[in-house]
Amino acid sequence: MTKASTAVIKQIKGGVLAASGFRGAGLACGIKSEKGRKDLALLVPDAPAVAAATFTQNKVRAASVLWDASVLKKHSHVRAVVVNSGNANACTGDRGELDTQTMASTVAGALGCLTDEVLVSSTGIIGKFLPIEKIISGIGKAHKALSNNPAAAGRFADAIQTTDTVRKDFALRVEHDGGSFAIGGCAKGAGMIGPNMATMLCYITTDAEVDVKTLRRMLLQSVNVSLNCISVDGHNSTNDTVLLLSSGASGYKVSTAEREKVFKDALDRVAIELAKAIIRDGEGATKLVQIDVTGAKTMADAKLVAHAISRSPLNLTAVHGGDPNWGRFVSSAGYSGAAMKAEKTTLFINGKLTFDHGMPADTPTEELATEMRKEEIVLHIDMGLGSGKATYWCCDLSREYITINADYHT
Amino acid sequence: MTKASTAVIKQIKGGVLAASGFRGAGLACGIKSEKGRKDLALLVPDAPAVAAATFTQNKVRAASVLWDASVLKKHSHVRAVVVNSGNANACTGDRGELDTQTMASTVAGALGCLTDEVLVSSTGIIGKFLPIEKIISGIGKAHKALSNNPAAAGRFADAIQTTDTVRKDFALRVEHDGGSFAIGGCAKGAGMIGPNMATMLCYITTDAEVDVKTLRRMLLQSVNVSLNCISVDGHNSTNDTVLLLSSGASGYKVSTAEREKVFKDALDRVAIELAKAIIRDGEGATKLVQIDVTGAKTMADAKLVAHAISRSPLNLTAVHGGDPNWGRFVSSAGYSGAAMKAEKTTLFINGKLTFDHGMPADTPTEELATEMRKEEIVLHIDMGLGSGKATYWCCDLSREYITINADYHT
Repeated sequence: MTKASTAVIKQIKGGVLAASGFRGAGLACGIKSEKGRKDLALLVPDAPAVAAATFTQNKVRAASVLWDASVLKKHSHVRAVVVNSGNANACTGDRGELDTQTMASTVAGALGCLTDEVLVSSTGIIGKFLPIEKIISGIGKAHKALSNNPAAAGRFADAIQTTDTVRKDFALRVEHDGGSFAIGGCAKGAGMIGPNMATMLCYITTDAEVDVKTLRRMLLQSVNVSLNCISVDGHNSTNDTVLLLSSGASGYKVSTAEREKVFKDALDRVAIELAKAIIRDGEGATKLVQIDVTGAKTMADAKLVAHAISRSPLNLTAVHGGDPNWGRFVSSAGYSGAAMKAEKTTLFINGKLTFDHGMPADTPTEELATEMRKEEIVLHIDMGLGSGKATYWCCDLSREYITINADYHT
Repeated sequence: MTKASTAVIKQIKGGVLAASGFRGAGLACGIKSEKGRKDLALLVPDAPAVAAATFTQNKVRAASVLWDASVLKKHSHVRAVVVNSGNANACTGDRGELDTQTMASTVAGALGCLTDEVLVSSTGIIGKFLPIEKIISGIGKAHKALSNNPAAAGRFADAIQTTDTVRKDFALRVEHDGGSFAIGGCAKGAGMIGPNMATMLCYITTDAEVDVKTLRRMLLQSVNVSLNCISVDGHNSTNDTVLLLSSGASGYKVSTAEREKVFKDALDRVAIELAKAIIRDGEGATKLVQIDVTGAKTMADAKLVAHAISRSPLNLTAVHGGDPNWGRFVSSAGYSGAAMKAEKTTLFINGKLTFDHGMPADTPTEELATEMRKEEIVLHIDMGLGSGKATYWCCDLSREYITINADYHT
């Protein structure tokens, strides 16, 4: 084995267009009722790009998810991705499937490729038919606006949003082994966020050259420690899609175990940053909570514990109120389904010992309250039973979440 | 088989003391910070009563739950039940177990029975030690105050509450087959309510004569269609207990299949009424939602669907806002884990067709909105796959829930 060379990693601008070999566009075509709000996005690689994707595990799958899954069964490469926001095109039956196909064929017509080389995503309200004429006309304009400059990446990222309040993008340049590649992406999602092997919309591109088998395997692994480890409200959507495209334009070939590790680390970092950006912008969120579970009997158990803690409204309101009511966190671990013995369990809030092997710790309540009032909180629960571990991220549950979701309807 | 005689059933007053052969008391002993708020309750059968109970499935079990489970393993009959509210005595280790035993032995001393013939329940904040001196002195006063009149039943029901805002009790008199019996009970619970084979605190008494094996079997069956089918926030507590005591004082002996059915029907009705009372008084609740699932592949699948719909903050906020955003309900069924095909699925909101075999129904949105704005909403989802069915109850999620739970801490 040769000596491993060190990778130099820098954060860069450009989001989903940071990697070379991609052009994008984002504009308003009139799906959203707010005039001028962007709702149509197009991403086009200069040449067919190797594609990997994960989709929602919800048994009610939007027309676009059904379409994309069938495209990727047939093809290792794709020619375009078209996204509309403001309407999920889910629970819309045959007409919904026809509308998705029309979106793909309109893009294919403009680019001169096959319809089933075009991926489609939709996000927004469930159970309404798409305003397909507006979308057809929007696709024509988006095709003319395609560009590889960072502003276009920003427009793409904006056009995929629904209740999001900030743009979520992140990109890295990696120099390694005499070569260099970029990897970057953008994501949308602020509600109906519940991890289940795929989540929300997320587009990641790279100009590293990766074969389709490796790309698909790495995406699954990466999503399982990032975008599948977040929850705003535990509600798994009908449209969740994570897409990773490789143009190979950098000439950096992921061809050795060492290069695979370098690429995977960069991919994980981009996916985790985008996942955390979704949580920071969670509907009504004022705080970011990281849940570190260690010492679980198995890794599956660690995930169960993190999952249960991240989803209880009681826990999320305690976080919102800055309330060190830690019994709620411990009791969530107790009903999570994971193996647990209270007398082996220890809980730390921002590093402060809170629950000590089945008993309240000596740390003064006021000291814990000070930690709970911070904007970023790390809950570390050690189960004392094994070596299983997991990290999840969630946000607090606020009155603003109620306001957003009691009133959202188009 | 002889002709079945009809049972005549009447609702009566008296709650947990409606059945003959029981005395009760409830008073303030100073556990709660609000002066004069009742926090200690005592229930004493005139003679040893046949006892059945179900407890929380949370792996973190309060000292009182551990104690009661061991008592009922040894004994078919009990002599008393003592309950404190304001402190759950959970996550309190050895000292917590000693405190529970002290509560039991204090009652045993006053009554002249064995310590392990006394059941103990605690409810309130997790992770604090009990003020045991106050409780010992309170038990002495409660023993002197024991009475079988309805006012005492009310004091008992009040003294077991935490964030509850109304008293929850219900009782029936059943005349059947030349005999008559009463069955009644009370419950507490407004938050940390998530069904998992046992839930919150609930005490039901009867003067029907039932053997211990039948009583325990029937309680499990009854809890599975009532108190296990409710959710306020899906958070399964460390202290949940449902207790059913039979004094046999009425002379009505549950000795035939027909009498068993009559008794079981009455038990189900009491348990369902108390379950619904908990939901109506759910923290911040303004609406009662009944979720009827039919046509599921199996009964287990029907429960998964009802469970998923009842727990999503997105669904509960839609209910709160009177918003017919039905795609949320359908998508919850989709991620519930149950078998589902959108094209076989139908949803009705208060009987109005909403989602029709995979497509939006023609019912105007404004008509659905009118139903969603009502105080009681029935969501009926038919899966079109089999004969599995289940009914669950839940409440809406309001800003008031956040206020209550972001600020609750002692």
